[in-house]
Amino acid sequence: MHLNVALVGFGNVGRALAELLLVKQDLLRDEHHAIVRVVGISTNRHGHAIDPAGISLRTALDAVRFGSRLDGIHEGRPVQDTSSFLERCPASLVFESLPTNPIDGQPALDYIRSLLQRGIHVVTANKGPMAFGYHELKALAADQEVGFFFESTVMDGAPVLSIGREGLVGADISEVRAIFNSTTNYILTQMEYENLGLEEAIKEAQELGLAEADPSLDVDGWDSVFKIIIMANVLMGTDLRPEDVTREGIRNITLEDILEARAAGQRIKLVCEATRQPDGSIAAAVGPRRLLLSDPFASVMGTSSVIDYCTDVLPQLTVIENSPSPTTTAYGMLMDMLNVVRGRYRFEVSE
Amino acid sequence: MHLNVALVGFGNVGRALAELLLVKQDLLRDEHHAIVRVVGISTNRHGHAIDPAGISLRTALDAVRFGSRLDGIHEGRPVQDTSSFLERCPASLVFESLPTNPIDGQPALDYIRSLLQRGIHVVTANKGPMAFGYHELKALAADQEVGFFFESTVMDGAPVLSIGREGLVGADISEVRAIFNSTTNYILTQMEYENLGLEEAIKEAQELGLAEADPSLDVDGWDSVFKIIIMANVLMGTDLRPEDVTREGIRNITLEDILEARAAGQRIKLVCEATRQPDGSIAAAVGPRRLLLSDPFASVMGTSSVIDYCTDVLPQLTVIENSPSPTTTAYGMLMDMLNVVRGRYRFEVSE
Repeated sequence: MHLNVALVGFGNVGRALAELLLVKQDLLRDEHHAIVRVVGISTNRHGHAIDPAGISLRTALDAVRFGSRLDGIHEGRPVQDTSSFLERCPASLVFESLPTNPIDGQPALDYIRSLLQRGIHVVTANKGPMAFGYHELKALAADQEVGFFFESTVMDGAPVLSIGREGLVGADISEVRAIFNSTTNYILTQMEYENLGLEEAIKEAQELGLAEADPSLDVDGWDSVFKIIIMANVLMGTDLRPEDVTREGIRNITLEDILEARAAGQRIKLVCEATRQPDGSIAAAVGPRRLLLSDPFASVMGTSSVIDYCTDVLPQLTVIENSPSPTTTAYGMLMDMLNVVRGRYRFEVSE
Repeated sequence: MHLNVALVGFGNVGRALAELLLVKQDLLRDEHHAIVRVVGISTNRHGHAIDPAGISLRTALDAVRFGSRLDGIHEGRPVQDTSSFLERCPASLVFESLPTNPIDGQPALDYIRSLLQRGIHVVTANKGPMAFGYHELKALAADQEVGFFFESTVMDGAPVLSIGREGLVGADISEVRAIFNSTTNYILTQMEYENLGLEEAIKEAQELGLAEADPSLDVDGWDSVFKIIIMANVLMGTDLRPEDVTREGIRNITLEDILEARAAGQRIKLVCEATRQPDGSIAAAVGPRRLLLSDPFASVMGTSSVIDYCTDVLPQLTVIENSPSPTTTAYGMLMDMLNVVRGRYRFEVSE
């Protein structure tokens, strides 16, 4: 199988994906019979490149590392913007890793819709389109009989959606409980371990590249809200929007709170919950919780994440992801591509 | 899709599977378009029943609960033994949950081989055939283009093999580390919590039905050996046999050892490891290990289990199964059946 792919978004994750496609090239060919050719790369800051004959990922990675634009490896008349890139790029699968827009998921939501309408497989790591348009996009992909996968939108590339779809198929998931946001988990860890105030810990996380210049998306709980919505909407048969989630971030957590919890044998974590209610609906909440130190969630420190699935047949399954990196997120996208290669979307279509 | 199935083995797991097939009947039909009819049940102590028109699972469960034989619901001339049951039963999928034979995996190994040769899908919860014949059976299933699934052979029905096959597809697993045997984990927990000697704790586990009359399979580490072999052979591309695993059970662990470890801030656990060596081969070992209390493995108590996957793209993924029951193991078999229904074996065939 020959697969022409394009990368839209070439930040940490997009570049890690490019590296991974190089590293895994032989494995993809030998074990999955997939010859993958990258025919386009679209970036926010380094321009766009299309080459139907195949772009050298090494050249593209070097160009961006040295601050050059990608126009030098583009073939044909110049590409003005991402929309025209997507119209002209001859890819049958697009990897999308643009920054999350927390207001309405745009412009990625429109990009993905348009790609699926044209019968192009989409793999996204972007929470925005998922939080604002999952069911619409999923139905569209089914109509068009193409793959739409999004493993890397939650817990980097750890297979938390795959576990629900494959490992818990036929089970009834009554509750999902998780620590999903690595930035706030790192901040809370540093406050406790290094005796830092919230502002100091945020600053340190920003210096390490873990927090954005505007840390609100993480610190005020929005990232966690998006992720718990994705889990609930994909695996628990509901259709929540961000405003449906009871949300409290860690903005008001002080060093005193943390030390007081510690003295009581507890630890504060930003916990996400989605729970089936007696009437069958799903209630979702994000907020700081004081956990006993014996709670497995309490020992998930730094940038690690954790999720509990509660089901009718397996009372509690806990999955912990340790030490993720952009490569981990890129891996989730590679796994999704292999789901397209393996036709994993076809059964879903027939449902 | 109409699916005729048979149950070979009708102990705790087989009966839990029968209950689950009843509970999940509507879901199987509505969400997976699978109408499942049980056309045969073969037991060690309650005889055999075949009915091409479908056996009432409720009747069969009641019969066995009240100590009756199944012959009363059998249609046709009597069935003498499991071999003739398998020859005559008109099933296209057989669930096998016979007791594990630790010597050579027989007779289940022969039963499965013969079923696959006849083009019948097999779902097994039995470690014996897997430890002694996995690669042969897998190749045979591929040749015959039928499904051969075995999720419940390791960690009850927690999706530890599915995670490897689906959630870590394309990743290179360099190490698997686990606490797989719930009987010894329960024994070690009770020794520490209740100040019991090994013999007392074994006796308690036997009274609860967690340990066999001859506890050797668990206590001497054989069950753990079989499970780590299955993980290594299925997910790490090797072909280990029981004799290849360095094995030490908990037979020599005393209450003093446990209290001494505890005083040092440690806890003794029976740990399984399979690790890729510099030369590419896989080394596997089972033995009691003293773990720091801060190690997540140290807080897996009672009958719970845990596994770590170390891979090139996701440094460490930890999966914990809490509070399993026979229903959990039965669920793994149901999940495997859904993999057959979804044609999950077809891609593997094309490899």
